Amino acid sequence: MPQKSIADAVREDRLWQRHVDLAKIGATPKGGVNRQALTPADGKGRALVTSWAEVRGFTTAVDAIGNLFFRRAGSDPDALPVVCGSHIDTQPTGGRFDGTYGVLAGLEALEAAADLNLVTKRPLEFVAWMNEEGSRFQPATMGSSVYSGANTLDAMLAVTDGDGVTVGEALPATIAATPRAAPRELGAPMAAYLEAHIEQGPRLENARKTVGIVTGIQGCRWFTIEVLGDEAHAGTTPLAARKDALRRALNMIAAIQDIMADDTDTVRFTVGRMEVFPNSPNTVPSRVLFTIDFRHPDLAVLTDLGDRIAAICEAKAGGQPVTVRETYKVPPTTFDARIVGHVREATRRLDLSMMDIVSGALHDAKYMNDICPSAMIFVPCEKGISHNEIENATPEDLAAGARVLAEVLIALANE
Amino acid sequence: MPQKSIADAVREDRLWQRHVDLAKIGATPKGGVNRQALTPADGKGRALVTSWAEVRGFTTAVDAIGNLFFRRAGSDPDALPVVCGSHIDTQPTGGRFDGTYGVLAGLEALEAAADLNLVTKRPLEFVAWMNEEGSRFQPATMGSSVYSGANTLDAMLAVTDGDGVTVGEALPATIAATPRAAPRELGAPMAAYLEAHIEQGPRLENARKTVGIVTGIQGCRWFTIEVLGDEAHAGTTPLAARKDALRRALNMIAAIQDIMADDTDTVRFTVGRMEVFPNSPNTVPSRVLFTIDFRHPDLAVLTDLGDRIAAICEAKAGGQPVTVRETYKVPPTTFDARIVGHVREATRRLDLSMMDIVSGALHDAKYMNDICPSAMIFVPCEKGISHNEIENATPEDLAAGARVLAEVLIALANE
Repeated sequence: MPQKSIADAVREDRLWQRHVDLAKIGATPKGGVNRQALTPADGKGRALVTSWAEVRGFTTAVDAIGNLFFRRAGSDPDALPVVCGSHIDTQPTGGRFDGTYGVLAGLEALEAAADLNLVTKRPLEFVAWMNEEGSRFQPATMGSSVYSGANTLDAMLAVTDGDGVTVGEALPATIAATPRAAPRELGAPMAAYLEAHIEQGPRLENARKTVGIVTGIQGCRWFTIEVLGDEAHAGTTPLAARKDALRRALNMIAAIQDIMADDTDTVRFTVGRMEVFPNSPNTVPSRVLFTIDFRHPDLAVLTDLGDRIAAICEAKAGGQPVTVRETYKVPPTTFDARIVGHVREATRRLDLSMMDIVSGALHDAKYMNDICPSAMIFVPCEKGISHNEIENATPEDLAAGARVLAEVLIALANE
Repeated sequence: MPQKSIADAVREDRLWQRHVDLAKIGATPKGGVNRQALTPADGKGRALVTSWAEVRGFTTAVDAIGNLFFRRAGSDPDALPVVCGSHIDTQPTGGRFDGTYGVLAGLEALEAAADLNLVTKRPLEFVAWMNEEGSRFQPATMGSSVYSGANTLDAMLAVTDGDGVTVGEALPATIAATPRAAPRELGAPMAAYLEAHIEQGPRLENARKTVGIVTGIQGCRWFTIEVLGDEAHAGTTPLAARKDALRRALNMIAAIQDIMADDTDTVRFTVGRMEVFPNSPNTVPSRVLFTIDFRHPDLAVLTDLGDRIAAICEAKAGGQPVTVRETYKVPPTTFDARIVGHVREATRRLDLSMMDIVSGALHDAKYMNDICPSAMIFVPCEKGISHNEIENATPEDLAAGARVLAEVLIALANE
């Protein structure tokens, strides 16, 4: 009788039950999860995942920024591990799958390997990165950025929450929640990194595909624009005599929307925040602040269109002061072609429908791609809704993605 | 030797000094005035004006809503008074001239008449209307609206401020500040009403004219528009899949700006307030609220353009919910042609430069025009700035307007 494949050993019911059980920690009345990084709920969640791993004999390690690793040993003690993972911290009104899925799919892959008594050359690991969401402490993707060296440990330990508590002060209690975790070196090398995640967008569902072959992460630029005008009486001041900060801001946004127009619907352009001063119905606004979130997978487009924003704002300011500050800038990520090829090949082998996709959101895999060959696997989420308590995904799709993940992990671990 | 005219008897220095002295009550560090209606400062201001009036033998009366009247008797005890006035309450960060000028110009006219020992057939009065600004208690023009019958006394006495204090509770202390004021009947008839005021706009200054012959007050309509969409992730959600409440709101405003375009620069169209929810840079807005303040002197235009706003919002809502509420609607006021003619004739007699003007702001004269023939006289204010601590006007212009006012009052009082 032929050996049962790792994909066959992935158990949909076990993976689903893990999601149900972990979602009880930080559960919200509307069916979502509030398990923000470095809160007591985060510690409880980490302890629960650790208890599941320890039962299977996986070893646990934690690094200085609180990234939590679980390892199933390989046959070659000197071989670098093949790592997968994501995060279990959530938004304040988050869902049951964002991040959590990538961690539990990793656990499921390792459990399936253990169920089969598979021997791999390389160790297999899954990781729960610390503070991917950036809700209590900014920036987001904090743990993976420190692991990869993009941010320094000292700088991140000094970050404060809204109450003035630092990461350095909050971290020990969270680390103490997994007392048997051994210390782990920051930046310890990996053979490869994989991250399974719900898409957080509607494209897979709309295309009726089960697996997204994530070829990269689009780049992102954030701008804050402040437009000044002169406060004036709405009844008495002729329009020609006004310096209306809001009217100018709207002209700027309209002109930027024009250059962002895109038949392929690839550009992501969002004005999400706007503040008007003094914000009184019968006073011409003297000051308007608005933000731009602009994303694109192509660095040339991201650079060209993004670099035109300041000049457009100047041109539409009518000689009044306008300041354009770029507050965030990350280039697009292109995942490793070999690892992406493994994902595509495994999906084909499992006869699952698939499409190539570029991630719209940032993920920890962005930083891992800087230090080792990396890729991601997306599965559909209902109506593309995420960062929301009603976030949903099906047990079948979650299991399908976990099977692809397990197949790729085993293939890479035996290379 | 010819009799000195009433205009010659108006004293620029005395009028200016009254402004300086009254501005000390509620003075702000930036040179403005905070003397909101029914506050202790309002009472002190009313007591100071009363002390000036009593020295000249003018009698004082107060009605049930706190409008404060000062009278110089005429020769015919049965004749209706010719009344002028404005208000001495201010915005929280108001100036020294808005309202105050109309009261002090009235005092100056009566003092000039007294200095000349003029005998008029009709009594001459000036009035300080209660709560024109509507800062602490809404609505604005409260006192004149009750006097004219547009609002009921009971409804206005029940109005509360931000702390839950009613007008009825705050009024007695203010009335007690002028203990010798006799009771006065609400709505007691007048022969005519005149109001001198700073323009609060830049047209007189720009045209280098000293006197604005105010032919009316433009009409005003206020709208509050609420646009709904769906919250979505700015990175993952394609633009075609979004229901972006802010983008829709901006399309609505652009389309309304188009129909409001006006080569004559007569339309006053202002979006002064905008609220965006959840107002986060990387979340597509799910709800936007904005206001429209639309004013025009022509009722047909006010009706036609204003009535098209709701349909435009519907058309630009892309099938998502939008609600358009009209929160305020006042038709244009046309002042009495005979009284306006008196103002024009007096200005010509005094050889002052003038232009016809329609008031952009509401004034107490709007309500007086409903019960007696009324008109207004504008003088320039610096750069058109008003409702601002830096509001300014020149002693010469203030005196010129007071001379016109005094001439008209005497002419009407002897008709």
